[in-house]
This record gives sequence, structure tokens and C-alpha cells, in this order.
Amino acid sequence: MNERDVIAYISALAQPSAQGLIKGIGDDCAVIDRDGRHVWLLTLDTLIESVHFDCAFHPPQLLGRKAVSVNVSDIGAMGGQPRFALLSVGMPPGFDPAWFQAFAQGVAAACREYGCLLIGGDTVASPQGLNFSLTLIGEAKAEHVIYRSGAQVGDTIWVSGPLGWAAAGLALLQRGIGRDTEAFFPLMERHLDPRARATLGNMVGESGLVHAMMDLSDGLATDLAHLCAASVVAAEIEAQRLPGQSLLAEASRLTGDDPLHWAIRGGEDFELLFTAAPEAEAELMGLGRQCDLELTAIGTIVTGSGISLLRRGKDGSTEAEPVAYGG
Amino acid sequence: MNERDVIAYISALAQPSAQGLIKGIGDDCAVIDRDGRHVWLLTLDTLIESVHFDCAFHPPQLLGRKAVSVNVSDIGAMGGQPRFALLSVGMPPGFDPAWFQAFAQGVAAACREYGCLLIGGDTVASPQGLNFSLTLIGEAKAEHVIYRSGAQVGDTIWVSGPLGWAAAGLALLQRGIGRDTEAFFPLMERHLDPRARATLGNMVGESGLVHAMMDLSDGLATDLAHLCAASVVAAEIEAQRLPGQSLLAEASRLTGDDPLHWAIRGGEDFELLFTAAPEAEAELMGLGRQCDLELTAIGTIVTGSGISLLRRGKDGSTEAEPVAYGG
Repeated sequence: MNERDVIAYISALAQPSAQGLIKGIGDDCAVIDRDGRHVWLLTLDTLIESVHFDCAFHPPQLLGRKAVSVNVSDIGAMGGQPRFALLSVGMPPGFDPAWFQAFAQGVAAACREYGCLLIGGDTVASPQGLNFSLTLIGEAKAEHVIYRSGAQVGDTIWVSGPLGWAAAGLALLQRGIGRDTEAFFPLMERHLDPRARATLGNMVGESGLVHAMMDLSDGLATDLAHLCAASVVAAEIEAQRLPGQSLLAEASRLTGDDPLHWAIRGGEDFELLFTAAPEAEAELMGLGRQCDLELTAIGTIVTGSGISLLRRGKDGSTEAEPVAYGG
Repeated sequence: MNERDVIAYISALAQPSAQGLIKGIGDDCAVIDRDGRHVWLLTLDTLIESVHFDCAFHPPQLLGRKAVSVNVSDIGAMGGQPRFALLSVGMPPGFDPAWFQAFAQGVAAACREYGCLLIGGDTVASPQGLNFSLTLIGEAKAEHVIYRSGAQVGDTIWVSGPLGWAAAGLALLQRGIGRDTEAFFPLMERHLDPRARATLGNMVGESGLVHAMMDLSDGLATDLAHLCAASVVAAEIEAQRLPGQSLLAEASRLTGDDPLHWAIRGGEDFELLFTAAPEAEAELMGLGRQCDLELTAIGTIVTGSGISLLRRGKDGSTEAEPVAYGG
């Protein structure tokens, strides 16, 4: 029984939609009706020491920020605005108060930046290590919510920033390689202090241009596969178009990793992945510029199922290779 | 830095009330405006293995029920009705699928019983042991929400059921004493499968009779102290009136514990604690009967601060003793 089985098992037990529930398990957030015109978006994520973070190199203030950002990312990915946060903190006995205070300051600072209020929570003893759960409540107009399930054949597939940088940064941090090399700071920052694309997600939702959207938390291959499965379509992505590869190539020369593996498999980028009709390109690029983000078209939605990676040879030929995904 | 310091530190960092936020940190739930007439009640609780439960004697199905009940209790304690639940599950590698399925079935069954929908969540790896976070979203009419801060001098203090039974049951379970004695099943059931008083809480909220309310999660001394501090009043409770003492006395003969200590200090009873004008007695008792619960008046709200325990001697004299509280 893996993580996906656990979710499937819980989903099967959950009750079907009912009055007030618009979308239950299966997207970035649950969606409930607020007043007929607006909805609440609800998401809950847990960070566990040694699984999601390593205190040896994760400054507590940035970890507090990250606990908020990863949840805000889910709200943005549905087109909403973050509004309220609840925080549950599990602390081992004898924890360092200064560490906790820096963590809490990070939480508070990130809440302010994203425009949401910390409204409650819980503290518990956690003898085996730190853990943090954060619930985020976002808001959107009902007609602006974007689901994973709306991708249409012929849509262009977009991402909001470089791919694989968080995974590359984590590899450098874990192995203690290149930590002092300024060129690699953007990679490590991606792991330590990712920024949720909430403003872009909200603007994209309000634009009405986008058919399907989610955030990139488990890596492009896995997340795009989920989007395609929910939309009952397939995707072709072009290896050469994946953004951010030159810095990955530099880092990979130190670590020996495959930069394309980072770009396709690396998790925790927290960029947005979305699809829209090809005609929307100019308007979408304009929204990206307003948010200081460079949007990149990486492929196309096609009929069928699964993900194919297209590699163009120097002779102009194209090879298509199916991309397996897990998780 | 203890749990209370942690909460105080987070509260200080949290932003003050803002548009849409009616009550932030400091009550059983946060309260946000829904549509001007209704509010959402939000609560998040985490259960950690070896702190909140022991798999050696906690059947997984009952633990799943408890994860829901302890959160529903917070919703009931504000006068609301539970509506939606989000579940985050942290599982160690190699966990037993049958155990997890029984746990999830308990969660689903409790959600059905309390009338709330499981709408989302998260699963994570948790190498050091099981942990569960549950967010519950409840609903109430704005004018029916009851806070901790409304107790008035002269109010009668009520509880919705026996006190200290969960603590006594836990003591029996932990020490392996009296586990097969049917008379003690109600004590152990209180720890393993507490029932949230959501229906009573909601009826009490709608009755308009009650000035202040909260649930009993940390023990009467601590919880009543919080209610008094929030209301800027003091309380006198009468030792002889605390309900459920005869069964505690029986159990204490096996374990050597002080039954009054269980009644005053024992946590996790998840009964409701509330205050109302003395004239409301008959109507409140009627609400209790409708819910099959025996409500007990245990004392009086007075001026000042702190909690006093009154013990009446056989000669009719009364001794008052201040009750210290922690947590």
C-alpha cells in the first residue's frame, strides 16, 4: 500500500458531493460553496522532519515560510486567493525556543506576504521529531475556479518557471556540494524558500483563459500525468523547451546527476502547470510579465493517455519516448 | 518554553482581526464570516503516536473515530454543526495496510455519524511513527456562536457528563488493570472512543441560554481557568457535585490514584463546560434529556480570578481551597 493507495482508499470511503460541497478529494484543494457566488478553497499539508526538511541546513525562518508557501501554492493552483491559515506544531521535548521563534516568525512573515491571516492552530508534543501541519483557506469567485480536469485536446501546456531547480538545490544541500557557489543559490533557494505563484494563479483564474491547472509539487511527470488522467487526455512535452536547464546542467557537472531527470522528476518546484488554447498565448505572456514570471510553453495536449517526451535530433528528426510516472 | 508559551508566541505574531475574521486564536475554533448571517468554525488538531495514543491497546477503528471526535468536540463547543473534514495521515514505512484501512473506516464512520463530509487531505511518510492531523470546518448562525469569554458573575457552571473517566480509563489501559472488568468499560471507552457533544452544543447555541462554553480537553481545572481568564471572572466548584465519582472511586481502589485528581485534572473527557444564568436550569436540563445526557451544575461564577474547590464537611462547614492549574 503506497501513498496513492492510501489516498484512493480514503477517497473511496469519503462520501459523494453533497449540499455545499463542490469538489472533494482529487484536486489541489477541496471546494465548498460560500454564498452561491464565492467558494472557499481548503487544503492541508504536513511537513515531517527528515522527510520534508533537514534542520542541518534548513534555517527555521525559511522552513516556517515554506510551510505556508506549499499550502498557498495549492490555493493559487485553483485560481484562488489565500485568506486564513491554521497551524499545528509538533515539537520534541527540549526543543530550542530560539529555533521555534524563528520558525514562527517565518510563518507569520509569509502569511503577511501572501495576504492571509494566521487564525488558529494547535501545539502538541512530538517526541520523535518536528512536524507541522498547516491548513489554508482560500477564496475565489465560483466561476474562476480552475480544476485539473478541464484540459482540452490541442491546448498548449504551460509552466510558470524553471523546472527541477528545487530537486537540484536539495541535491547540492544534502551532499554539501557547491553551497558557496553564488550561481547555485537560486537552486538551493528553491528548496529552502519556494515562492507560491498565488498572484499569477489568481490572475489566470480571473482571466478565463486557462482550462486546467495544478501546482508542481511531485515533479512534472507525475503531476502532468494526474492532470491528463483527470482530463482524460494525453500530453506531449518537448525536452528542449523545459525551462531552466542550463543551470541544471552546470549543477549536474558537480553532482553527476542527469539534469533532464531533475527537470522531469524533481518535486517541490511549486510552479504552476496549466493548459490553454494556443490563441491565449499573448495574453498569458502578458499576465506572466505582470507577475515578473517567465511563462514557458512546454508541449501540447493530445488524445490518448500518458505523457510522451519529444526529443528533436540535430537533423530535425523527432523521437518520442513515453514517460513513466509514479507517486 | 512550554505549550502555552508556544501558543502565546504564535498569537502575538498573528495579525489582529481583519475583514471576514471574527475570532482568531484563543477559543475552541477560529470563526470567519460566511455570508453575514452564518459563520464557519475552523479547528485543527494533531494526534501523535506515543503522546496521544498507544497502538498496543488502541484499536485502529476507534482511533480513527477519535481523530474526528476530538475536532467535532471543538465545533460543538462553539455551538456549531460539523460540516467538512480534511485529514492528513503520516505513516511510517512498512505500516500495516489492514491497520490503516481500519483507521480510515473509523474516520469515515465517525464523519457519517456526526454529519460531516471528508473532503480532502494529505498523506506523508512519517518514519518516526504515526501521526494524524484533522481539520474540521463547522457552521453556525452568527448569533448562535458561544465563546469562552461570556461568563457572567452569578452564572451556574455546568458540565455535560462525568469528569475524569477518560483519565481513569487510560490509567487502567496503560497499567493493564481491570481491562476485563465490565464495570470499567465505560472508563476505558471514554479514552478509546470519546463522543463529541456536538448535538448538545448546537442546541445550547441555538437556545440562547448559555453565556460561555468550551469543551473539556485538558481537564476541568485547566479548562475552567481558561474560561474564567477569558471572561475575567473566577469560579467556585463543589467537590461533591462533580459527576461520575463513584466509578472513579472503584477504579482508584485498583490503581491507587486519587479519584478527585482524575475528576479535576484528567484530560480528554470531551464533555461540554458552560455557564448560564441560574434561571436557565430547567430549560437546560430539558435540552440535556433530549440528547440523553445528564447535565450537572458543579459550581458558580464569582468575581475575582482563579478557581476554588469547595469541600463541605459532615458538620455542614465549607472549606475553600484554591485549585492550581497548568497547561
